[in-house]
Amino acid sequence: MPTGRVATVAPVPEEGATGKVAEIYADIRRTKGIETVPNIWRVLATNPDHLELVWGRLKAIMHPEAAGRVGKLAPITREIIALAVSATNGCAYCVNSHTTALRKLGMDVETLGEVLAVVALFNSTNAIADGYQIEPDVLPPV
Amino acid sequence: MPTGRVATVAPVPEEGATGKVAEIYADIRRTKGIETVPNIWRVLATNPDHLELVWGRLKAIMHPEAAGRVGKLAPITREIIALAVSATNGCAYCVNSHTTALRKLGMDVETLGEVLAVVALFNSTNAIADGYQIEPDVLPPV
Amino acid sequence: MPTGRVATVAPVPEEGATGKVAEIYADIRRTKGIETVPNIWRVLATNPDHLELVWGRLKAIMHPEAAGRVGKLAPITREIIALAVSATNGCAYCVNSHTTALRKLGMDVETLGEVLAVVALFNSTNAIADGYQIEPDVLPPV
Amino acid sequence: MPTGRVATVAPVPEEGATGKVAEIYADIRRTKGIETVPNIWRVLATNPDHLELVWGRLKAIMHPEAAGRVGKLAPITREIIALAVSATNGCAYCVNSHTTALRKLGMDVETLGEVLAVVALFNSTNAIADGYQIEPDVLPPV
Amino acid sequence: MPTGRVATVAPVPEEGATGKVAEIYADIRRTKGIETVPNIWRVLATNPDHLELVWGRLKAIMHPEAAGRVGKLAPITREIIALAVSATNGCAYCVNSHTTALRKLGMDVETLGEVLAVVALFNSTNAIADGYQIEPDVLPPV
Amino acid sequence: MPTGRVATVAPVPEEGATGKVAEIYADIRRTKGIETVPNIWRVLATNPDHLELVWGRLKAIMHPEAAGRVGKLAPITREIIALAVSATNGCAYCVNSHTTALRKLGMDVETLGEVLAVVALFNSTNAIADGYQIEPDVLPPV
Repeated sequence: MPTGRVATVAPVPEEGATGKVAEIYADIRRTKGIETVPNIWRVLATNPDHLELVWGRLKAIMHPEAAGRVGKLAPITREIIALAVSATNGCAYCVNSHTTALRKLGMDVETLGEVLAVVALFNSTNAIADGYQIEPDVLPPV
Repeated sequence: MPTGRVATVAPVPEEGATGKVAEIYADIRRTKGIETVPNIWRVLATNPDHLELVWGRLKAIMHPEAAGRVGKLAPITREIIALAVSATNGCAYCVNSHTTALRKLGMDVETLGEVLAVVALFNSTNAIADGYQIEPDVLPPV
Repeated sequence: MPTGRVATVAPVPEEGATGKVAEIYADIRRTKGIETVPNIWRVLATNPDHLELVWGRLKAIMHPEAAGRVGKLAPITREIIALAVSATNGCAYCVNSHTTALRKLGMDVETLGEVLAVVALFNSTNAIADGYQIEPDVLPPV
Repeated sequence: MPTGRVATVAPVPEEGATGKVAEIYADIRRTKGIETVPNIWRVLATNPDHLELVWGRLKAIMHPEAAGRVGKLAPITREIIALAVSATNGCAYCVNSHTTALRKLGMDVETLGEVLAVVALFNSTNAIADGYQIEPDVLPPV
Repeated sequence: MPTGRVATVAPVPEEGATGKVAEIYADIRRTKGIETVPNIWRVLATNPDHLELVWGRLKAIMHPEAAGRVGKLAPITREIIALAVSATNGCAYCVNSHTTALRKLGMDVETLGEVLAVVALFNSTNAIADGYQIEPDVLPPV
Repeated sequence: MPTGRVATVAPVPEEGATGKVAEIYADIRRTKGIETVPNIWRVLATNPDHLELVWGRLKAIMHPEAAGRVGKLAPITREIIALAVSATNGCAYCVNSHTTALRKLGMDVETLGEVLAVVALFNSTNAIADGYQIEPDVLPPV
């Protein structure tokens, strides 16, 4: 019986992974402190170069301390942005993943509701501004 | 000569506004501490009921202290969400408006770059997750 | 076995709801003439303030008669807009919900097809207009 | 000085158009009762086959009477859907074009505001439903 | 038990189809060289006029040889565009359908990964360009 | 007088750029064979780390030969994907930029029209598939 989601490629299992893929899997587990590599990375591993590019970028932006860099945003703020983007795009996998991350960082359900209240509010005003083609306010120079 | 943006209705000017519209204009200036009512509210004023609904909701969510409520998110976090949503939707008016708000709250250009780095990263991973129809990870119960 | 949709928070059940949540649940059932509160409201109830804001706005716009106001659009036109927006955004829950509402209002399957024909047509021309960055026609003043 | 909109191809002028393009231009003017062919058609004319396909489809859906067919939706309802889709997608050219069409059909500014109120409301609830990945309500069979 | 996807109308079965619907079903099987009519066409058949319009357009664009026309793009390029659009919109049915088409045309999983790498890259830069409202480069005349 | 596009930060000029930014500017000019650094890179330079991440990724995916790698897709196919994504998202800057790239690669206006015909077609069928919540076809295992 088909369900709503049918993955189009088979993920590369953790056991049996070799070379660059195995190294990145290990780095994902170590950097994120998790025991299982999430599906997105195991699917990306079907093209190891792309896996490397996406993980490298995500690691640099979301785990700057692993690169000896200090991020300008708090980790929870970065995950809030991730959820805001994912809810706006309606990306099911991503909403689940980033909500889990926020819960692990200690966000309670009521605060999650406030995040989504802000997300919903501005999806609404975006439609108003675009629906009227409102002209930009005259901005002071920055 | 036409430009890229042609507003479809004429905004209601501040001078000469009466009744409910004048009251809301005054509340916007007072609550936001600004001297000029932004274009979005002056366009919404062409339908005073809609102006009231949108302003009431935005005030409740973005200015909870004006309603004697304590928000669970910092004001700068709320504006960051607003920018993340607006950049994802490509809403020109809204990007300009929320970037101005963030600059007023003291965000420097380099931190703005980090916000947009996170926004861009997850618009990218959203396309990957949707493009492969990746199945959700098995989540621990919350 | 994971399916395509994994709700990220548990809905607040109708039985056992108290205070503001119970009142809003009762208002939803009464205003909409239904016996069971739909999932979206029961999920929003995890943040009662947000539930109140969203329901208040939806009630004012979609059920103006409940507020003693006369809407300028017919109820079926409002639901058609809701479906057009939801199909454009690809929001699964919302498409299901608003299609049900249209069927209850008496829309047959062939007319539903015409609604979606118009929705599909303009998603197509939107891509053309944006894909060529077509300049606006010179509009007569309104 | 660059502006926000730079069309990527030059439209095909009405004067001097020949063959299939000239015929379609004439059909557009006649069917829509306008004197000037809007920019979107003059840009599509750079690929006459595509012009024919898009115009043929739009004519069949938006001007069924020209094909001896009776549409199931009122003309104003079809234009309302067009605006709802265009506002949701943020398509500037299309918002301007369909707002003009609605004004010509007699819609006043306040009713336009109600249309956009409904559009904005459901862009908001779409973000909520997707942001929580709300599970579908159990629907009665149709 | 509800799943993530609940189709809102019942597809028209192949057996028992008559008239225009039966003819189009036969044309779909013949033109695409498949034995079963995909769900999208069987759902569109609930409004036979819309089925005819959408199939006619898709046939003209995606199967030009069936109309005695030579397309300017290779078939695999057209399917790559289809997947790029579908991944960007997050359309589950369409991603599955066009990935299947690409696999049938001989694309291996690693090349599929490169397609999605390009799709993901530009969803990312789109968010950057919109998030900063970057002004267009001065283009040379074409 | 405000126009439709108001960039939110000032680009970093080429003259006077130093350190990492100057090096990346030089690499962009060399890799792309252009004399002027496009606006997107000069805006990204306000956060040099982000400039480095985005350029590194774009160079790896769009200019694999510069990294001694052989891409699996032709350069023109990659730019076609870029335009398809940008048109679907309605990103003005990106549509202009990628159309210019396609013209430089020799694409004529009629072929550009065929690319956008395919883009428009699938934005349309995406809305249909999502608007009916069409269930996935049963796919053969890959």
